[in-house]
Amino acid sequence: MILYPDLTNSLVTHSNFMLQTTATADPTQVMKSYAAQYRDELLEGILPFWMKHSIDEKNGGFFTCLDQLGKVYDTDKFMWLQGRQVWCFSFMYKNVEAKEEWLKMALHGADFMIKHGRDDNGNWYFSLTEDGKPLVQPYNIFSDCFATMAFAALDKAAPSEEYKQIATSTFENILARRKNTKGIYNKNYPGTRSLKNFSLPMILCNLALELEHLLGTKKVDEFIPEIIHEVMEVFYQPELGLVLENVHEDGSFSDSFEGRLLNPGHTIEAMWFIMDLGKRLKDETLIKRATNIMLDTLEYGWDKEFGGIFYFLDVKGNPPQQLEWDQKLWWGHVEALVALAKGYSLTKDIRCVEWFEKIHSYTWKHFKDKQYGEWFGYLNRRGEVLLPLKGGKWKGCFHIPRSLYQVWKTLESI
Amino acid sequence: MILYPDLTNSLVTHSNFMLQTTATADPTQVMKSYAAQYRDELLEGILPFWMKHSIDEKNGGFFTCLDQLGKVYDTDKFMWLQGRQVWCFSFMYKNVEAKEEWLKMALHGADFMIKHGRDDNGNWYFSLTEDGKPLVQPYNIFSDCFATMAFAALDKAAPSEEYKQIATSTFENILARRKNTKGIYNKNYPGTRSLKNFSLPMILCNLALELEHLLGTKKVDEFIPEIIHEVMEVFYQPELGLVLENVHEDGSFSDSFEGRLLNPGHTIEAMWFIMDLGKRLKDETLIKRATNIMLDTLEYGWDKEFGGIFYFLDVKGNPPQQLEWDQKLWWGHVEALVALAKGYSLTKDIRCVEWFEKIHSYTWKHFKDKQYGEWFGYLNRRGEVLLPLKGGKWKGCFHIPRSLYQVWKTLESI
Repeated sequence: MILYPDLTNSLVTHSNFMLQTTATADPTQVMKSYAAQYRDELLEGILPFWMKHSIDEKNGGFFTCLDQLGKVYDTDKFMWLQGRQVWCFSFMYKNVEAKEEWLKMALHGADFMIKHGRDDNGNWYFSLTEDGKPLVQPYNIFSDCFATMAFAALDKAAPSEEYKQIATSTFENILARRKNTKGIYNKNYPGTRSLKNFSLPMILCNLALELEHLLGTKKVDEFIPEIIHEVMEVFYQPELGLVLENVHEDGSFSDSFEGRLLNPGHTIEAMWFIMDLGKRLKDETLIKRATNIMLDTLEYGWDKEFGGIFYFLDVKGNPPQQLEWDQKLWWGHVEALVALAKGYSLTKDIRCVEWFEKIHSYTWKHFKDKQYGEWFGYLNRRGEVLLPLKGGKWKGCFHIPRSLYQVWKTLESI
Repeated sequence: MILYPDLTNSLVTHSNFMLQTTATADPTQVMKSYAAQYRDELLEGILPFWMKHSIDEKNGGFFTCLDQLGKVYDTDKFMWLQGRQVWCFSFMYKNVEAKEEWLKMALHGADFMIKHGRDDNGNWYFSLTEDGKPLVQPYNIFSDCFATMAFAALDKAAPSEEYKQIATSTFENILARRKNTKGIYNKNYPGTRSLKNFSLPMILCNLALELEHLLGTKKVDEFIPEIIHEVMEVFYQPELGLVLENVHEDGSFSDSFEGRLLNPGHTIEAMWFIMDLGKRLKDETLIKRATNIMLDTLEYGWDKEFGGIFYFLDVKGNPPQQLEWDQKLWWGHVEALVALAKGYSLTKDIRCVEWFEKIHSYTWKHFKDKQYGEWFGYLNRRGEVLLPLKGGKWKGCFHIPRSLYQVWKTLESI
């Protein structure tokens, strides 16, 4: 049996399905009714799990490699996950409730990051040992992105010149490294096939808003059009109707493994960042475009045989180089729920309700661990648990709490 | 449903199962009876497939990204796969039959490699465009390993000073880069956790014999004990009964993602290299040890639920960081067939027959494409085809033809 899907006829078409609930009930009420479930899971499930299991009392910082029960199975500290968790507790303290224990969590992580996280040039290491010795060099700019987010959010929760300074200097460093984020660790031969990657402009969409109180509204206003252009004009390919992970420097399509790569979850996440920017700019056209691209990407990336959103696809239907292409990952699904909640809230497009219910149902059924709390991260194509971890090298305390918060607050207020 | 296997009680124990055939028939005759099937698949299936589909007539070299039908779906040229294919056709020309078309294939690939493959320091690039422009820098020493093998084998088929010189200078370069194979692209912070990786000593086991006509018997004789020591004493962990992928510089266990990593196919492949060395040294104890380690690794790495050999496991039963850990890859299975054929031929251990029949049955059922020829490379845990490619960035014309040859010749002569 060959399980590789035939995508050759998968040109984007709009969905026509209609769920029972939305056919009979007021869709706004249907959507509103989900809010409490997301709030409760955030406050009673997710945050307490990380409070209980992830603190390293001895060395500071957080353990993120937690097994199904929450037991630490590896002690390495990945800086981007430290930053994400500091961001998370700072954000919840500022936006949900000023709970001392949440602020304490954020400060606990921030102290460790300040003490051990950077090299002499202010670049953030990729990983450290549990007691803070550098393990992997700062080859990956995402450590810096999430450090910026962490200290900007912490500064909102507990204002401090030091946090402001770390956030802004790291942000400037990211902009300086923007053209070659991997620096000396970049293995591409210069000039042969210069591709740019979608991750950075996508994160900058979100980061600009997170940093507004530090950068100032004027600077953010100047910054936004360029990022929107990058995402919506350069990485978005009109003839495909999709956003690609890598394009040539001039925005054209590269017929290579990297150039053909689609990461549906990534696009969908970016689309809610764009909706947030559209809301700020009061640009309804932009919001509608982002909603449509998000829905088209869901249509394309949904596994019609087993359900769930594919991790990677090749837009020409070729085998992708990622062996994990058919897996279903937690973050893509929860980010889709945010994008659909925001899309519905901003456009009242009924397709957002239909898709929300479909993905809500898949996500809560397959990802949530009803036995030991928190959510599984990695499912195989059939939706069975592939790795029973609650956290690891790439899954920490970030996408699930952020998404639960966003869905809760968005649906509560429609 | 959680599919992660409980390995906590999987301490290595010897297999007790007994197949029908081996219970009633002479095991040597049973094994001998397989030889023709392997020969026919090599000569009528695999080699003609690559002859027909992989030649780039315009630019030289080989396409390796071939879809299920053999159609080229990506034109990038990965140097280690170019080298492997040159080795393959040179080897078959020298060891099976002096067919002009096979030598022509080898020369076709070698010409392209010579023209475009190296940087100014003689390091082999990782990949090139179809017309030979460098794409990815020489960060990976395996390009060099397979270039050495290619030109050493080609020199046996069509002796030339140039081929000799390329093989020996590349081999010296590998030895010089041995302590830090990734050079400037090494992302590990120096000194914190110095691990050494199993791949290089394992390949050197095989490379030393491939190069004997160039290095001279004396040099190879001096070289062998050190490599055997590395594999059988340093990477082999007596308390686990397994060979690990990464150990501390002093050979001790590292309780980290890298240190806990087991790649059963890798160990099993290495064990037939060790058997070859044992045969050369007339060291029966070494041969028996290699056979036992190979059988223990099969027992440990075999998926008792769905069959097949797992790609990666964590020896402490933790979730590995490789999302593709549960997949079944072609090379591990065909290398196991070689190790079992050689193990039986050298030791007459009946367990080799039992395992051979079990893996033969799984491999031919799941990997061989009965419809379009050649074999699939990547199966999911259930043994279903995950990617319908015949070649890609990592699968080329190497493991299958080499293994078919080795099994054929080994079983024919017992």
